Amino acid sequence: MLNTVIIGTGNLAFQLANVFYETEEIHVTQICGRAPSLPSGFYSDIDYCSTYEALLEADVYVIAVSDSAIASVVKQLPFKDRLVVHTAGAVSMEVLEGQNRKGVFYPLQSFSKNTTTTFTNIPICVEAFQPKDHELLIKIANYISNSVYTIDSQQRLALHTAAVFVNNFTNHLYQIGFEICEQHNLPFEVLKPIIIETAHKIANTSPKEVQTGPAKRGDTDTLKKHINSITDKKHLEIYNLLTQHILSQHGKNIL
Amino acid sequence: MLNTVIIGTGNLAFQLANVFYETEEIHVTQICGRAPSLPSGFYSDIDYCSTYEALLEADVYVIAVSDSAIASVVKQLPFKDRLVVHTAGAVSMEVLEGQNRKGVFYPLQSFSKNTTTTFTNIPICVEAFQPKDHELLIKIANYISNSVYTIDSQQRLALHTAAVFVNNFTNHLYQIGFEICEQHNLPFEVLKPIIIETAHKIANTSPKEVQTGPAKRGDTDTLKKHINSITDKKHLEIYNLLTQHILSQHGKNIL
Repeated sequence: MLNTVIIGTGNLAFQLANVFYETEEIHVTQICGRAPSLPSGFYSDIDYCSTYEALLEADVYVIAVSDSAIASVVKQLPFKDRLVVHTAGAVSMEVLEGQNRKGVFYPLQSFSKNTTTTFTNIPICVEAFQPKDHELLIKIANYISNSVYTIDSQQRLALHTAAVFVNNFTNHLYQIGFEICEQHNLPFEVLKPIIIETAHKIANTSPKEVQTGPAKRGDTDTLKKHINSITDKKHLEIYNLLTQHILSQHGKNIL
Repeated sequence: MLNTVIIGTGNLAFQLANVFYETEEIHVTQICGRAPSLPSGFYSDIDYCSTYEALLEADVYVIAVSDSAIASVVKQLPFKDRLVVHTAGAVSMEVLEGQNRKGVFYPLQSFSKNTTTTFTNIPICVEAFQPKDHELLIKIANYISNSVYTIDSQQRLALHTAAVFVNNFTNHLYQIGFEICEQHNLPFEVLKPIIIETAHKIANTSPKEVQTGPAKRGDTDTLKKHINSITDKKHLEIYNLLTQHILSQHGKNIL
């Protein structure tokens, strides 16, 4: 049985506490947070503390707090030579510098507290300074996910950046679709099937191969119609930039 | 039984021929194309012609050719007072002006010839000049799909533009994710679960409500790290523009 302590009570801490709790080989020894008692929603029989001095012994301490708070948490840990990992995409492992052994346990997904997350398909990216710690993190990751990667801090930052493009920015494009529908009294429902189809289309092929649309074809007539139909200046800026990029990527330098 | 003639042999013509053929209430009377004989892949017992003079009588003629060819096809039809519809998102119904009754039958999806398309969930957007033609198109649409909308030409153009944002542009963002992975020796596989999750997250809520990420939070530290980690000038242009838009949409004017 692997003993884990989770430091933090936010979305990711909550999801990790749940999946660890539900995994036979992992024990959640304790959760540590700022609130006086364990916040509601967590499995209520998990031990809780609100001061670092009360932290129990464990095989790994998982820091799941906001990026900017990680360094300060590490400095306050009242022990040494234990394995302490953070869970952040855009934070280097070096931030954990101090008296303890360091590592990273980064699940690449966008978590929210009110939805149940199934970890099986969520990629877990691990990194550790010492080989035995790396092995332990790989083991924990494999208990909860079928998709485990060893990547270093520089790769992880790149991956986090890539995730911003395919997750945050994509969602913003959905929002623009939503706004265009609203402007023309169209239900957003009508766009949902093509959104799902687009995401699933790249399952077995590169996005470049399945690119479609007027920019890919160099169809200036349609591009002009779209540009004339867009009434929002911000939408138009994005339309123009992304169209230019697709045109040039597919060798259609016509605008 | 409704008799249909499909004019065109491209991706959409192929998918419509298949779904009409497989629908009990619809008969594919004929396919009309430029090739001397019916291209392989189509159900081989469908009647085929390669001249407009050989067109048989039908309840509806479905023009599924490239946008720029629609007007020329309509002009060459050797009959009058029949229902002729096109299938294009960005083409006004008025393009069909001539001796026949006009309408539009627009399935909102991105079609490719080598994949089997299930129409059940594909939104079909119909428009017609005469009420009885509108009724007939609604009937056909309902035979093949659970999602049928009546929308006019202006709405359809807006919808087509919105689809470019959520489909073509989104796919381009996936391609940027792919390129960042390639640059850092990361498998693109690692991004696929978050891509799927992002698309499914908006099922029951507006994209604005589920927006996450450093721009949404106004997290300048992470934004700066990302900007410094991006080596491709084109990626950076898109990163900056979309970040600015999300920042301003969520009231975070900090950059």
